[in-house]
Amino acid sequence: MTINIVILGSGGAIPTLTRNLPSVAVQCDGRVFLFDCGEGTQTQMVRAKLALSKIEGIYISHLHGDHVMGLPGLLMTMGQIPRERALYIYGPPGISDFVEGNRRFLGHQCPFPVIIAESKGGLVSEDDSVFIESVPAEHSCFTLAFSFQERERPGLFMVEEARRLGVPPGPLYGRLQAGESVTLPDKRVVEPRQVLGPARRGRKIVYATDTRPCDQVASLAREADILIHDGMFSDDLRSQARQKHHSTVVQAARIARRAKVGSLVLTHISSRYMQDGPLAAEARKIFPASRIARDLMEINVPMYK
Amino acid sequence: MTINIVILGSGGAIPTLTRNLPSVAVQCDGRVFLFDCGEGTQTQMVRAKLALSKIEGIYISHLHGDHVMGLPGLLMTMGQIPRERALYIYGPPGISDFVEGNRRFLGHQCPFPVIIAESKGGLVSEDDSVFIESVPAEHSCFTLAFSFQERERPGLFMVEEARRLGVPPGPLYGRLQAGESVTLPDKRVVEPRQVLGPARRGRKIVYATDTRPCDQVASLAREADILIHDGMFSDDLRSQARQKHHSTVVQAARIARRAKVGSLVLTHISSRYMQDGPLAAEARKIFPASRIARDLMEINVPMYK
Repeated sequence: MTINIVILGSGGAIPTLTRNLPSVAVQCDGRVFLFDCGEGTQTQMVRAKLALSKIEGIYISHLHGDHVMGLPGLLMTMGQIPRERALYIYGPPGISDFVEGNRRFLGHQCPFPVIIAESKGGLVSEDDSVFIESVPAEHSCFTLAFSFQERERPGLFMVEEARRLGVPPGPLYGRLQAGESVTLPDKRVVEPRQVLGPARRGRKIVYATDTRPCDQVASLAREADILIHDGMFSDDLRSQARQKHHSTVVQAARIARRAKVGSLVLTHISSRYMQDGPLAAEARKIFPASRIARDLMEINVPMYK
Repeated sequence: MTINIVILGSGGAIPTLTRNLPSVAVQCDGRVFLFDCGEGTQTQMVRAKLALSKIEGIYISHLHGDHVMGLPGLLMTMGQIPRERALYIYGPPGISDFVEGNRRFLGHQCPFPVIIAESKGGLVSEDDSVFIESVPAEHSCFTLAFSFQERERPGLFMVEEARRLGVPPGPLYGRLQAGESVTLPDKRVVEPRQVLGPARRGRKIVYATDTRPCDQVASLAREADILIHDGMFSDDLRSQARQKHHSTVVQAARIARRAKVGSLVLTHISSRYMQDGPLAAEARKIFPASRIARDLMEINVPMYK
């Protein structure tokens, strides 16, 4: 399974000519999971060559305009594309009123089912290969941070071990790989654990903006491959960050270090910063694997072997 | 008075990488009058170097998402800029619910007064130098077309005539120019009409999208300097235009010819058209002074002398 992250909007509050409003796409085997949907997201998806028809679910962190005002327009455009399967929208309490209210004001009805679910934290959605959880972050209004997690995959099939146990090559290999016990011609039973290596961990991506640095996000992000975190301010503006319920890049880097994540992507960058370098340098002093998000940045998340 | 039009979004329904959603700015002596506000308008204003602080009024044609979804975000960004004077928003019935509903959903309150007025046609707003009128157009929902009109200006001051009448150069010239009668030292009274040429007509810009070709718009556009009109389709798609309550470029050109406008700007161009040339050629066969709107196109409207 390929997992690829595309930053659609790395700005916050006010869009600039280089930073659109917040949105992050997680591409996963041809499906797109969208986190936040600021104004302009549908155009950014076109720019990133992501098909709107592939959107599986949209996860909204909170009901501030910069994170959500692209949603009604995105739904309208999706309504022009052939689609039968449902679209899922998840977000904090109030997301349903927002979507339904705008549908009513604009007299627009999607031709496919739109299923809206409000969450206060916990398991948000799941299928056979991935699951998404949320925790409340710390912002000026109720805000969710999300983890996107691939399920654990069975361990590698140890062909040598299977041969040693006398399993004949062929369909029995497949059944063992799929987790079934098999009975050999001589009546011996072979269990999957005898021929499979240790289970391979699933990949984990955490999206946490807008938020002050907080314990809940640090826990959610535990050993994530990628933590995408609010890094709106440089460290000299930490009192402003606190007052506005955001994080500095240094605070975000401390969360990354504490959560032992693979790497940190700082986003929701204030429009005051013209250069990434100084922000990145501040974060890297605390957590070297830090970078500043840019619009259309792509991050491949390699599979565990 | 300088009047300058900037096309912020020349597309319609679905934004593309070259055509944003509908919005047109009329710049008038440092003030900006905004017609429609599709998603992405605030960023287009930055691109066009138009200051958000200069917006005087926002005129919404109708409550379809592509014409209005940029408004809540624009208001949020304007709320970050020092401003005390009121912002006026005019639109069809329902515009107030839309603005107020989103303000409530997003918990956002502008720090300056926002005055919303709903119109079903007629005089929409006026001041000493300009006035804006509307008529109902013909679309799938109630839609307003707008005329932006400069007031008639007094005629040119005829210095030779004033001298002949014995008016001494100085403050009396100014009072006559301002429309006051003056009494000369020899007790004779000179009236403004004796020293002023014929009143100079004001400039007129008409904005009409989305709409089928219709009589009301043709009347509103009578002798306008610039008619900005729905030209969503080429003429071969006129049945589709009719069905979707839009116009072809040929239909719009006929309205322009009938209304004897100075020039025609076709907008709300469907995302299917990659080239302007064929559309412009179709329109010019009917009305030579036609052009296809492009994003960030600027049109200066010269003063009548």
